[in-house]
Amino acid sequence: MKVLVINAGSSSLKYQLMETDTKELLAKGLCERIGIDGSIKHSASGKDDYKADITMPDHSAAIGTVLKMLVHPKYGVIKDTSEINAVGHRVVHGAEFFASSVLIDDAVMNALKECIPLAPLHNPANITGINACKAVMGDVPQVAVFDTAFHQTLPPKAFIYALPYKYYTEDKIRRYGFHGTSHRYVSQRAAVLMGRPIEELKLVTCHLGNGSSVSAIKYGKSVETSMGFTPLDGLPMGTRSGSVDSGILEYIMNLEHIDIHQMLNILNKQSGVLGISGISSDFRDLDEAAAKGNARAQLAIDVFCYKVTKRIGSASAAMGGIDGVIFTAGVGENSIDLREKILEGLEFMGLYLDKEKNKVRCKETIISTDDSPVKIMVIPTNEELVIAMDTAEIVKGLKK
Amino acid sequence: MKVLVINAGSSSLKYQLMETDTKELLAKGLCERIGIDGSIKHSASGKDDYKADITMPDHSAAIGTVLKMLVHPKYGVIKDTSEINAVGHRVVHGAEFFASSVLIDDAVMNALKECIPLAPLHNPANITGINACKAVMGDVPQVAVFDTAFHQTLPPKAFIYALPYKYYTEDKIRRYGFHGTSHRYVSQRAAVLMGRPIEELKLVTCHLGNGSSVSAIKYGKSVETSMGFTPLDGLPMGTRSGSVDSGILEYIMNLEHIDIHQMLNILNKQSGVLGISGISSDFRDLDEAAAKGNARAQLAIDVFCYKVTKRIGSASAAMGGIDGVIFTAGVGENSIDLREKILEGLEFMGLYLDKEKNKVRCKETIISTDDSPVKIMVIPTNEELVIAMDTAEIVKGLKK
Repeated sequence: MKVLVINAGSSSLKYQLMETDTKELLAKGLCERIGIDGSIKHSASGKDDYKADITMPDHSAAIGTVLKMLVHPKYGVIKDTSEINAVGHRVVHGAEFFASSVLIDDAVMNALKECIPLAPLHNPANITGINACKAVMGDVPQVAVFDTAFHQTLPPKAFIYALPYKYYTEDKIRRYGFHGTSHRYVSQRAAVLMGRPIEELKLVTCHLGNGSSVSAIKYGKSVETSMGFTPLDGLPMGTRSGSVDSGILEYIMNLEHIDIHQMLNILNKQSGVLGISGISSDFRDLDEAAAKGNARAQLAIDVFCYKVTKRIGSASAAMGGIDGVIFTAGVGENSIDLREKILEGLEFMGLYLDKEKNKVRCKETIISTDDSPVKIMVIPTNEELVIAMDTAEIVKGLKK
Repeated sequence: MKVLVINAGSSSLKYQLMETDTKELLAKGLCERIGIDGSIKHSASGKDDYKADITMPDHSAAIGTVLKMLVHPKYGVIKDTSEINAVGHRVVHGAEFFASSVLIDDAVMNALKECIPLAPLHNPANITGINACKAVMGDVPQVAVFDTAFHQTLPPKAFIYALPYKYYTEDKIRRYGFHGTSHRYVSQRAAVLMGRPIEELKLVTCHLGNGSSVSAIKYGKSVETSMGFTPLDGLPMGTRSGSVDSGILEYIMNLEHIDIHQMLNILNKQSGVLGISGISSDFRDLDEAAAKGNARAQLAIDVFCYKVTKRIGSASAAMGGIDGVIFTAGVGENSIDLREKILEGLEFMGLYLDKEKNKVRCKETIISTDDSPVKIMVIPTNEELVIAMDTAEIVKGLKK
């Protein structure tokens, strides 16, 4: 089955066309500056890459452009858009409505709209993407795959904040968690790599990229995750502060005479390792600066790694044990040094890193010593594949 | 040496008179409603308890009343106030100025004033208490013992928040930690109880009361603690939320049209286990309600215990291992059920609770099994004793 995977942002649209029977990536690309002017980057297997400025007044125009590229005689991979069997959408927030992927119908669209206050930047863009596909592709079945769904198995003790309870019952304030598709994918791959059924494994998944979260996956289900009501909670990230004392917000707001919106802007965009280092949100830049003796770049790296170390400890305690740790996403898959630093001192919990095996990037590998009681793994994430496979499964179910 | 220990609040003043040579408590009491009308409760060893309404227009009047009680022919324990060799004050915030207790002089007083913005409710009361003693007792040496001092050994990776760095350098925003006197005392007692030098021990100290914090004490030094810039950070408490997603503050403030001051009031006074349960901030009330089937009381207990469990995991990871866990303060010393619940599932880290030995309240006891690799202990805290002993040591040093 050929599935078009769509990740729509407010002015951008990422896409991949996948053949789910073979798990083959046929084509992928990115539309940017939608509604401003418009540009596209496109690449397909066996074809030259393509890049152009093309006017895209809205997301429907972007989808139209994508379809044109997919059937393009020189750059395309299919003959006719009718070859696309289904569309799978990445949707950020499914609140408590969705604990798994769903076929999109009117009821689903209404629920997505109800989730907008919880994800005011993301869900409207996702809805726009779905509507654009409907407008251009008509009755092709569409599926929503949620960033939050995998974490709907968190027990109440893990998702309830210690606030007046009405904020949960009336206002839906709770820990939702994000990166669910990634945590789900890598935990399932880890079980395969370990040669054991996921139903007997306690895994800690470290999704470390520009945004970062650590989850505890017990017997295949997410029971704890570091992101919370929003993706600001938990670990420090590229530009996000992660968890901070709420007293700090009051202190800074009084000090600088700013409002909560401006405060959140600082916490979301000027904090994290960028804030500490004053240099960059990119760990490659920090590594380089630290190597040259920049103390604050080194401190930013130290703080980040230390918080991940602590999260591995708390996630393990949350599950009452640990069988494996997985590193994924940009930093997790690529940074040999950071993995080593994060794992320093965790031998007491049975984590023994093999420093030679750890010299790997973006490749499914067990990097612990052969006799390490807890397996340590690098597993490149593939959220698009999960979206495509979920979509195919749901659409195949329809036809029965 | 006879030391008067003073803990001054904005309208209250707790005191103890201690004989530091024998570590004997001679008398103790509490003045309340200072500046409003005034009342005192007083008890001394071998004497009847005393309770009366006495007008106390200010803290000097309260100190005067305390001294009168101490020399009282019927309720007192000394003949003359000149027998008091020194006064030790509990001071909440010492910022980065004080990493240990100090003799109070003008420079110290100026530093205490500089710390006021960091502890606007507490430090002014502490300063008032010191000035009152000076006014009434003249040249008797006075010592300040800080709640923050013991945590000044935290490494930068543990005390730096992932914020723009200027907030640390210019505005002193960092993790300070509190309950330092208690964490210090119980970790030192734990070493005695374990019969091992503290310099080789990795200990997790759980100060669980109406306010709660968990610390990691490595080789006698605090290297991690859950309270932060303010005592709101970290664990959920009686009425305090502990750490929450900053995005929640923005969401609630917009929803309810309240300002940051009102928001912090909710987080400090209406949250924690009171907020979740809707019943009480007192764990004894929650236990009772939960036993009768109140689900939200049970949830509040579950959330609290779960967060402590996770903190034991993260504190152990922060130290790269763990030799002992200590429970102290109201809940930690008294709640058999909560200790059991907190320790559930931590066997994988070498913590084996002896459920029979755990049936203990307020008594220094090892409650782990004999062969538990990690010792679990109940150690009643005694912050006043630490204040008295620190004061005696500093004052003795003066005389040499």
